[in-house]
Amino acid sequence: MSAPILCDRDLEFMLFELFDSESLTRRSRYAEHSRETFLASIATAKTVAERYFLPIRQKMDLHQPTFDGKKVAMIPEIKVALDATLAAGLGSTTADFELGGMQLPPIVASVAGAYLSATGSTAMGYLMLTSANASLISAYGTPEQIKTWVEPMRIGRFAGTMAMTEPSAGSGLADLTSSAVKADDGTYRITGNKIYISGGDHDLSENIVHLVLARIKGAPKGTKGISLFIVPKFLLDEDGSIGERNDVALAGLFHKMGGRGHTSCALNFGEQGGAVGYLVGEEHRGLSYMFHMMNEARIMVGTGAATTALTGYQYSLHYAKERPQGRLPSCKDPLSAPVNIIEHADVRRMLLAQKAYSEGAMALCLLGSQLVDDSHTAETDAARARAKTLLDILIPVIKSWPSEYGPKSNDLAIQVLGGAGYTNDHPVEMFYRDNRLNPIHEGTTGIQSLDLLARKVPMNNMMGYQLLLEEFQSGIDAAHSRAELADLAEQLSEAVGILKTTTNSLLAAMMTENIDMALSNSVKYLELFGNVVIAWLWLKQGIVATDALAKKPHESDENFYRGKLQAARYFYSFELPQIQVWSKILTDLDRSAYDMRAAWF
Amino acid sequence: MSAPILCDRDLEFMLFELFDSESLTRRSRYAEHSRETFLASIATAKTVAERYFLPIRQKMDLHQPTFDGKKVAMIPEIKVALDATLAAGLGSTTADFELGGMQLPPIVASVAGAYLSATGSTAMGYLMLTSANASLISAYGTPEQIKTWVEPMRIGRFAGTMAMTEPSAGSGLADLTSSAVKADDGTYRITGNKIYISGGDHDLSENIVHLVLARIKGAPKGTKGISLFIVPKFLLDEDGSIGERNDVALAGLFHKMGGRGHTSCALNFGEQGGAVGYLVGEEHRGLSYMFHMMNEARIMVGTGAATTALTGYQYSLHYAKERPQGRLPSCKDPLSAPVNIIEHADVRRMLLAQKAYSEGAMALCLLGSQLVDDSHTAETDAARARAKTLLDILIPVIKSWPSEYGPKSNDLAIQVLGGAGYTNDHPVEMFYRDNRLNPIHEGTTGIQSLDLLARKVPMNNMMGYQLLLEEFQSGIDAAHSRAELADLAEQLSEAVGILKTTTNSLLAAMMTENIDMALSNSVKYLELFGNVVIAWLWLKQGIVATDALAKKPHESDENFYRGKLQAARYFYSFELPQIQVWSKILTDLDRSAYDMRAAWF
Repeated sequence: MSAPILCDRDLEFMLFELFDSESLTRRSRYAEHSRETFLASIATAKTVAERYFLPIRQKMDLHQPTFDGKKVAMIPEIKVALDATLAAGLGSTTADFELGGMQLPPIVASVAGAYLSATGSTAMGYLMLTSANASLISAYGTPEQIKTWVEPMRIGRFAGTMAMTEPSAGSGLADLTSSAVKADDGTYRITGNKIYISGGDHDLSENIVHLVLARIKGAPKGTKGISLFIVPKFLLDEDGSIGERNDVALAGLFHKMGGRGHTSCALNFGEQGGAVGYLVGEEHRGLSYMFHMMNEARIMVGTGAATTALTGYQYSLHYAKERPQGRLPSCKDPLSAPVNIIEHADVRRMLLAQKAYSEGAMALCLLGSQLVDDSHTAETDAARARAKTLLDILIPVIKSWPSEYGPKSNDLAIQVLGGAGYTNDHPVEMFYRDNRLNPIHEGTTGIQSLDLLARKVPMNNMMGYQLLLEEFQSGIDAAHSRAELADLAEQLSEAVGILKTTTNSLLAAMMTENIDMALSNSVKYLELFGNVVIAWLWLKQGIVATDALAKKPHESDENFYRGKLQAARYFYSFELPQIQVWSKILTDLDRSAYDMRAAWF
Repeated sequence: MSAPILCDRDLEFMLFELFDSESLTRRSRYAEHSRETFLASIATAKTVAERYFLPIRQKMDLHQPTFDGKKVAMIPEIKVALDATLAAGLGSTTADFELGGMQLPPIVASVAGAYLSATGSTAMGYLMLTSANASLISAYGTPEQIKTWVEPMRIGRFAGTMAMTEPSAGSGLADLTSSAVKADDGTYRITGNKIYISGGDHDLSENIVHLVLARIKGAPKGTKGISLFIVPKFLLDEDGSIGERNDVALAGLFHKMGGRGHTSCALNFGEQGGAVGYLVGEEHRGLSYMFHMMNEARIMVGTGAATTALTGYQYSLHYAKERPQGRLPSCKDPLSAPVNIIEHADVRRMLLAQKAYSEGAMALCLLGSQLVDDSHTAETDAARARAKTLLDILIPVIKSWPSEYGPKSNDLAIQVLGGAGYTNDHPVEMFYRDNRLNPIHEGTTGIQSLDLLARKVPMNNMMGYQLLLEEFQSGIDAAHSRAELADLAEQLSEAVGILKTTTNSLLAAMMTENIDMALSNSVKYLELFGNVVIAWLWLKQGIVATDALAKKPHESDENFYRGKLQAARYFYSFELPQIQVWSKILTDLDRSAYDMRAAWF
């Protein structure tokens, strides 16, 4: 079976028809680019993905990294594939040309990365975390730190990690206890235990640059006393060459449900007296630096979730088109040949749901990447500010909607394959396992929902919320003027009305009621908000498809656009109306969860 | 951490308060039993579960069976645990005393089995399939076959399997091609390939009795030409001792997402000329025999799904009560101690949902077991017939509701544990993987939905449907007379109204519209139907709890009953109202899935 990794046509649709990425070449940063260079970088990523990652995808899953008490071992093909990725320039697609990057717009880089992530799955995490680490030091480090640590990371000599979580401080980072003591030479000695450190140890690179959150002796308690340190696995000699081992020890590996291409480590810092660390930026401001990168990190998680959903959808679609089984209810002849299972309406429903979830999620994540870009490179200050404001309110949805609906989508892929999907003869059960981490890391769905309702919606006099409502309205107006979409426009208009009523009701409750109670169903608000956002994005896709169909495209394009419209219709019939149930729970200030007591369980 | 496997108090509530199982001792079959013997058998099962299965639960998952081309290897502790189960008499809890069984009512046996299944997880499948196989031969085999094959299975010397699925015949059994040729001695020679045969090969027992579906040469095509054969792994000598190897070869093992305590095999029959098989019952009636056992098999799947959900709920509950992390939104002091996560309303929501799903599912499965019992042992013919009719319509719901909501429940258990839940430091990710098979085997959710809408609802002039409506109404009436439940009674009444409207609309469409289109959203009908059934069972639990609270019980019981009421309220606020969305899809005859074409994807 050779299912496509991703649907090329769909990703081109998103890039060039839905988001008009070609227009980005008019911005000075992208002046040397063209539609052709965008497509070439995507084609390169696809080639590397197919040549290096796809053949080892299952092997990575079956052979998770092991730890013999001294070293981490993993299958050697991972290094070969990562090196090939770096050699193709795909380790730093958005970085400046002068730093060896491709200087691609983030939205194009996201599409290129999707091919790698769909096949390399979680092994790509080594490169993604390295890139995030390098960006953080670039933003807040000294020129010397950038030269020492970022440059080797940008060319793949060093790898990077983010060391935040501790055994007693996961979602509640305020409680972290790792400590730092200033030494006479101005460096620090770091002590503490960190867990779930992705890529925390390996032999894939010459060195590993840990970015560690720790509390300087005497610092205030809580979130305001946390500083950020560069703590390398190996110290460097004066000339930058690899020196002696720093006091960072691998305590063990976690064995995860999925994501087995990527180590998850417990690291002990300072067991021999203190690991040497270098302060990044100012003391006590570490958490704010880390959170400054949070938007990109959360888009990365959402995009990974969407991508795994997309590839599972393509796989199960391909299977459904080829697997004969059973007959239609209308079939009067039990001796007739079985039909391919895509002929069964319920299989089409499961495929349509996957299409609606995964393509809706990907559209949202690409919008997020574009907003990051706009917030830096849009032509006017006003346009940049507007993009940043929209981005901020959308981030909890970009993180959580794909993370919640990605696994749901992969779950349906398993169901389409039936018994075969439950075995590792096919990758769909692995996709589910890989995707299941996404509602957890980088802020759980519960945390995203509090961020949205208690922070992002009220923020700046509700400016982000208002801007988003304007966006919804312009989508509704555009759809209303197209007869085929008038009913969907009407439905979205009603949905936005429900969102407004619910929001107003909750904001009032947050001021007049017990705040814990008023926020107790925040996840349902996030779900409601998310479904409206995705419905709006499906309407926008429907508008593009409708206009394209009016131009009588050739048959394969006509089929493609009809599929887009049908997925939009599916979403509006099956998914969007659920907001009515959630709105009632929210506006009623339903107390089922809030009133429940620990002793009653 | 030592979370309880299951909540003893809750299972006693279901047995003795919700279903009044003690009254069964008035039936002659159970005259020698008492509440005490019921509890003793459950306690025995719990002891075996804790002593033999719990300690190896993770080891079984980590060491799935392997096949070296000749033999299956598995960890030796599995045989020890299964032998201990058999030695305790737990291999045949419902069988007659004279066959060495405990002659327990099925509902009591289900509760006892739940402890084993929750800890032994899928390894219990060896015994459960053996028991199902023995029951089938007991019902349709000759006295000689019963003596030869059933007796050794009842005492654990032989194991049994069901060999139905073939590479090209899974959901569509009508297309199976395994063949049987009659030999001169009246036995048959079986040839063909079977896959996904649970327990298809192992060294746990002296022999394995495969029940194989095959087509006798010259038989009609389709479902009416399938016969059932006993095909042992080893032929028996005249005296019943193990003779030579039959022509049944293990071709390989499937590697599954979960359920790793149980082999899933590909078996080749007749590679050396034909495996010796013995016809069960009459020629060409094999499928009807197999389907005669289907009700029990489907209840078994539902109960397994519910049990895995229950144990995951207990585990995450225990974790949430002990794990400190974060502070409440109302907390003004960031330096205060973190709270246990059960203090977070969203964690309580996730626990309440698990409680509502898992205890609702278990109540449904126990009702199913009781109806099986009633259909055989109720006092009057009328009562037996009524039980059988109710059972038949409920079977697709008993199979599918727990199978769909069990994994959802386990998914929430993972989320409660956060990052920890994604690792194998805790069993919740394994529970999810184990549970994920249940919506697939013994008839997928899609197939159950067609069984319900196209067959069970219209069957016998809608008699089952009408009886069920009567049951709903008597629950509503009983609740109406209790002030605290009047609002839930009203909600259920409205929900039943929606069910009736939807059913009538669909039945009309099935007669006037294209049948494939009319049935195209049948899964949504199953979901709607299922939520009404579960809501009714939660109302019944609420009635029992309300009456018990009126008697001012001691504190721990008061807490327990308040928890039941709160879970009922959760279900009515968060889950039941979704039927409005599904009803609209169904009554609109929504064509999203039906109209979608393969080329549009």
